Amino acid sequence: MTEQLKTIGVGLVGFGTVGTGVWETIQKNGQLISDRSNNQFQIKIVKAAVRDISKKRIEDAPAELFTSDWQDVVQNEEVDIVVELIGGTTTAFDIVAAALKLGKTVVTGNKALLAERGAELFALSQQHHAAIHFEAAVAGGIPIIKAVQDSYVGNEIESMVGIINGTSNYILERMTTAGLGYPEALKEAQDLGYAEADPALDVNGWDAAHKAILLASLAYGSVIDPADVYVRGIERVTSTDIAFAKNLGYNVKLLSVVVKHADGQIELRTQPSFIPKSHILSSVNGVFNAIALKGDASGDALFYGRGAGKEPTASSVVADIVDAAYTVSTGAPHRGFLPYSEHTQVKSIDETSTPYYVRFDVTDRPGVIADIAQVLANDGVGISGTHSPVDPENPDKEFVDMVFLLHTCAFGKLKATLKKVLALDSVNSEPVVFRIENL
Amino acid sequence: MTEQLKTIGVGLVGFGTVGTGVWETIQKNGQLISDRSNNQFQIKIVKAAVRDISKKRIEDAPAELFTSDWQDVVQNEEVDIVVELIGGTTTAFDIVAAALKLGKTVVTGNKALLAERGAELFALSQQHHAAIHFEAAVAGGIPIIKAVQDSYVGNEIESMVGIINGTSNYILERMTTAGLGYPEALKEAQDLGYAEADPALDVNGWDAAHKAILLASLAYGSVIDPADVYVRGIERVTSTDIAFAKNLGYNVKLLSVVVKHADGQIELRTQPSFIPKSHILSSVNGVFNAIALKGDASGDALFYGRGAGKEPTASSVVADIVDAAYTVSTGAPHRGFLPYSEHTQVKSIDETSTPYYVRFDVTDRPGVIADIAQVLANDGVGISGTHSPVDPENPDKEFVDMVFLLHTCAFGKLKATLKKVLALDSVNSEPVVFRIENL
Repeated sequence: MTEQLKTIGVGLVGFGTVGTGVWETIQKNGQLISDRSNNQFQIKIVKAAVRDISKKRIEDAPAELFTSDWQDVVQNEEVDIVVELIGGTTTAFDIVAAALKLGKTVVTGNKALLAERGAELFALSQQHHAAIHFEAAVAGGIPIIKAVQDSYVGNEIESMVGIINGTSNYILERMTTAGLGYPEALKEAQDLGYAEADPALDVNGWDAAHKAILLASLAYGSVIDPADVYVRGIERVTSTDIAFAKNLGYNVKLLSVVVKHADGQIELRTQPSFIPKSHILSSVNGVFNAIALKGDASGDALFYGRGAGKEPTASSVVADIVDAAYTVSTGAPHRGFLPYSEHTQVKSIDETSTPYYVRFDVTDRPGVIADIAQVLANDGVGISGTHSPVDPENPDKEFVDMVFLLHTCAFGKLKATLKKVLALDSVNSEPVVFRIENL
Repeated sequence: MTEQLKTIGVGLVGFGTVGTGVWETIQKNGQLISDRSNNQFQIKIVKAAVRDISKKRIEDAPAELFTSDWQDVVQNEEVDIVVELIGGTTTAFDIVAAALKLGKTVVTGNKALLAERGAELFALSQQHHAAIHFEAAVAGGIPIIKAVQDSYVGNEIESMVGIINGTSNYILERMTTAGLGYPEALKEAQDLGYAEADPALDVNGWDAAHKAILLASLAYGSVIDPADVYVRGIERVTSTDIAFAKNLGYNVKLLSVVVKHADGQIELRTQPSFIPKSHILSSVNGVFNAIALKGDASGDALFYGRGAGKEPTASSVVADIVDAAYTVSTGAPHRGFLPYSEHTQVKSIDETSTPYYVRFDVTDRPGVIADIAQVLANDGVGISGTHSPVDPENPDKEFVDMVFLLHTCAFGKLKATLKKVLALDSVNSEPVVFRIENL
């Protein structure tokens, strides 16, 4: 039967870790894929662009597969689907744009490209009736894109809260369980290959933020400007705050939060947050990812799995290729995401509200707690608890860390109040603030 | 723009809880669904068959929508997609078969129908080029069908382990956390509407087993005969064993296990099992469902959410309707499941291996432990631990329950050995056996 199947040609631009994984998966499970697709087509990788064509690649890939010019892939008449795997937002943009202009379907895992330059690319997708598929861009092997786009198509998405950067999650976990400082935990992650030599996008929160932007775009139908989004990374998380969190019953996780409010505005932020140890997201350890989603019909759901790595990412790229093949093989209109809403209003971070953990560096003298508490009280910021460690063997030792747990208030209001607290003589430096998430 | 959209007509057979949920979801989010589907179509419910046409239904449904004859739905020329929501395996079969013979797409949440009579129905699906979609048949609002069918299409599925009957999960949880006996916990579940007046299919394991059969069919491409499947329910789980499990660091969960073995055979069984308290599946409480899936590329993933209920089930039915609408609106070949493999060999339950918990009802006299241990040793069944509760205030009190934790061995071998143990004078009745799952 196989010879009667329509062949869908796939071109890869980039043949590194993920590209190799895609090749291997299709070699290994190609027959299974055709079977499961009711033998409507077979997938064949017909061209792959690589930087260094002389480099030895996997055994079963023929030499004529490779080219050093991405145009050879995009322009190739046998290529129906262009898979962009080089990363970055410049050449990758040119490749994706060129493919779309030729009416070719694009599959990419490039979250930065779509989050930063999605407006241009989705416009090309619409204009040229060519889909962009991007399951691999968010949470590796977890099919969250398809879930939001297809499985929850009948739902208003009320919220999505995710741990979607494995590197940060690994570092925070090691700080929590092994008591490592941030630099040691980062070094360990790098040694294990969990963090890049340049870990900036992972630890500064932007990798997660890009993914959250894509999820929000899917859920609310418009391209979102990254400039509207609040992002803080884990670089300044200290062992001190990790230890306080543990004592108070929390874990610190780099959390991306997307919430649709009654006023139609979207809360969209990424930062290290306190979450209760008892919450299921607290159990997401190592380089795993998880996304808790709430739809108005589906109710609460959670998706958990590997957020990166060769095979899990390849699994998602292959799923996108097959998804695309159904429409490419029949000429039916594609099912890729297209924006349908002019604009999604992102709520100002100052107007978003949670409870907070605030740690002050203070000089321990009579009145310090009263002074801070009074400033908070004057501004109507409620205190749910206070905490300062006492050495049982030396109860008269002066404390330097004074922790206040504060009731829910707007972030802008909190900042204004903390400015007044900082003016107190006994408060020595900018307080450290973490959100306590209401999950 | 709306008036230019192609209308896809949907007919419901059954307008109870889920049918009402489908109606409400499409009324509420219909525009959103069209937007998200790139305005390729709009969904309209054009006919609904009900048992009692005189019964007052929801306000905004016009009287002419309803009929008491399901043929009015299936034969209706405006109906492109027939949604079967009446349950059962007789009339439901006739309805689904009639729709398929007319080349109409079927959406159903009827796990019993597909697990018991799938061979006939999928043959009709193939013959008449009409898809059967059944996301709602497994795990309510969790999109596990689409995940297995589409998102993991490039993966060999190595295993799926799930808590997929909310009623049983609720009862076992209440026995565990509130110390209730089985009858009290069942009564509570019935009072809360979590269990039917006739809870047989839920508590005897067959509801979960039907779902596991469907998951295995999807993953391995053939219809599976329910007669090949091992199923035990929770009716005989006692407070005694729940208490032992807790003390030993386990929770008892009704677990459906699907494993592909190296010999190509599929292990497929449903029973109450011990799982470590630390495993993420142990945190799945109440009426929630979860499925842990392992693919050869994706690695470990977990899907969690509401397993039943009006809105979650409606969410999945609507997702299927929209999925079907893409192909129905273009005439492209459908993407519904079709078997592609002649036969899936289900491994004999006697050849499946796990560690075990075995509780003996014994007469406490010198030699009883030695006697049992000797029988086990003679047969080469390893003991990993023993446990019998001692009353600290009365250490000489005779025990009646003697628990052995046994190393992994084949179930058939265990049964043969236990028969010999039962022949001992000091062993009073059939031992109680639970599998300890290696997750």
